[in-house]
Amino acid sequence: MSAQMQQIVLASRPESAPTENFRLESSPLPQPGEGEVLVKVHYMSLDPYMRGRMDDAKSYAAPVPIGGCMEAGGVGEVLASNSPYFEVGDFAFGMFGWASHGCLPAKELRKLDPKQGPITAALGGLGMPGFTGWHALSAYGRPQAGENLGVSAATGPVGSMVGQLAKKAGLRVVGLAGGADKCKMAVETFGFDACLDHRAYGDARALRKDLKEACPKGIDVYFENVGGKVLEAVLPLMNINGRIPICGMIAWYNAGGLGEGASDQALTGPNIWRNILVKFLSVNGFIISNHFDRYPDFLKEVAPMVAKGELHFAEDIAEGLENAPAAFMSMLTGGNTGKQIVKLV
Amino acid sequence: MSAQMQQIVLASRPESAPTENFRLESSPLPQPGEGEVLVKVHYMSLDPYMRGRMDDAKSYAAPVPIGGCMEAGGVGEVLASNSPYFEVGDFAFGMFGWASHGCLPAKELRKLDPKQGPITAALGGLGMPGFTGWHALSAYGRPQAGENLGVSAATGPVGSMVGQLAKKAGLRVVGLAGGADKCKMAVETFGFDACLDHRAYGDARALRKDLKEACPKGIDVYFENVGGKVLEAVLPLMNINGRIPICGMIAWYNAGGLGEGASDQALTGPNIWRNILVKFLSVNGFIISNHFDRYPDFLKEVAPMVAKGELHFAEDIAEGLENAPAAFMSMLTGGNTGKQIVKLV
Repeated sequence: MSAQMQQIVLASRPESAPTENFRLESSPLPQPGEGEVLVKVHYMSLDPYMRGRMDDAKSYAAPVPIGGCMEAGGVGEVLASNSPYFEVGDFAFGMFGWASHGCLPAKELRKLDPKQGPITAALGGLGMPGFTGWHALSAYGRPQAGENLGVSAATGPVGSMVGQLAKKAGLRVVGLAGGADKCKMAVETFGFDACLDHRAYGDARALRKDLKEACPKGIDVYFENVGGKVLEAVLPLMNINGRIPICGMIAWYNAGGLGEGASDQALTGPNIWRNILVKFLSVNGFIISNHFDRYPDFLKEVAPMVAKGELHFAEDIAEGLENAPAAFMSMLTGGNTGKQIVKLV
Repeated sequence: MSAQMQQIVLASRPESAPTENFRLESSPLPQPGEGEVLVKVHYMSLDPYMRGRMDDAKSYAAPVPIGGCMEAGGVGEVLASNSPYFEVGDFAFGMFGWASHGCLPAKELRKLDPKQGPITAALGGLGMPGFTGWHALSAYGRPQAGENLGVSAATGPVGSMVGQLAKKAGLRVVGLAGGADKCKMAVETFGFDACLDHRAYGDARALRKDLKEACPKGIDVYFENVGGKVLEAVLPLMNINGRIPICGMIAWYNAGGLGEGASDQALTGPNIWRNILVKFLSVNGFIISNHFDRYPDFLKEVAPMVAKGELHFAEDIAEGLENAPAAFMSMLTGGNTGKQIVKLV
């Protein structure tokens, strides 16, 4: 029997929150073709955007087909190479999917140096999530010293990057996170000025009241990762000329289509639009994959901070490919603390 | 008895749509102090923003106090001058309010040359409304030839400027207006490709269906003047990377506060935010008075087009200061066609 690889495929589309929509499959280990590299995945990334790929609703990316391998970035070790750019034993990042192995063209891989730090950083702080936070803050958030910044999912890989960069830029940073432990981490590990546990509040109004005390001068930049109650609490506290980069709506990902059926969680339409109008807000939706031209700038600025220990990242590591669906579903309701990764070997 | 002037003051704050909230008063004609100029107003401007000044809700400008003169820009003739920059008989633009006369420092006036065209242009196409359209289109709309632009209040002084400039830039322009006559004017006078009468539709869904036929390639730039049903119809038709400058919400101005009580007219919250997110929309609230540093650029670019007859403006002129409240209330429900002006002499 030939060597085998495992992958997790999309078995069916979820009605709301994903449950039994995944299936573990085995298949023969592929051999690299011309210019290709075979990688054994050590760690794969789990990110909220993957929930969107499970629906066939119109969005910025094509859905995963039924029976297709779930998408994911991963880091691993080269087992075989048909490319002059990679040798057996090298480490690389690539979009290997929810899979034990991946076989990709060398040009789609990025070589990693394990001596420069943990290879998992390529999935978090120095990878797509960290880059997302850096890009959104600099391009849309435009932080000014002395301003106040709010950030949701404060201990996540995007939120913790945004908050730490904002602190370095001289802003006051208030996080929002789900649970007392995360709030403690936001303050003690990431150095935020305060962090509120949105789970401790029954509704947006109650959360807004305490948030107003935590942000007595209002909020100039709000980094939106979440949607739902947190966004509803924040919007009326936005200051004139505020900025709201939007890169996620995790609270509404299970709502179906463009959020039908979730209206009770939200500010009504006129309130939203009039807040945008009368406060001169700039609201920008974006996806980081349209902005990878800035990735070298990001690494140039942020990698030295990481090397000097000036930036911190939290990781939450699940064990085994077969446990990826459970870790993913838990992440969608905030069960993780920090960047969710799955260790495969 | 000394010479008198008339003004209309805010008698009380409206509960919803303004009704008997105005009072006509007479007072002695002021004499200009040092550096001041006394102007007899020939035409005054009526604009939707004035509705906001009647509330004491938090907004970008202080409200008109009870008993205070309603705000307005006007153009008129100098009756007396204590400034070397103005002579009797000169024409000037200034914020004289809803009043027959105004006495202002010379530095707050802008001299007009009646030989260069009708002085009412300073209230419309070459004044605040035209400048608003030009600024929003260039700074936030960022039109590209071949794109599709939607504009509400299509025959108004802002909308007609936006649509005509967009046509000159090579865009396809579809207007939205209230009434068949306005739609005809949008196409025949202003040269729009199409214009839909939003009053002919019972709800946003029906309007959206026809709008989708009028915009088969979707909408890249939507210029928001109105809010309400029109906005609700447009949002789902926005294309990826669309832009929505917002400078007005007239449909919701009577809704009270930040629009409470008007939720049935609106897309629910999740739909709004997820549209912004998944289409990478840029939404910008703004008020033109924060951007007057661009006014010289506007005049440099647009005044020659007006002089050559390349741009058209519609005016709707009411007669007599005492009729300003009725004209204003009619304008708030779209009773006017083109820039609403009141002729005082």
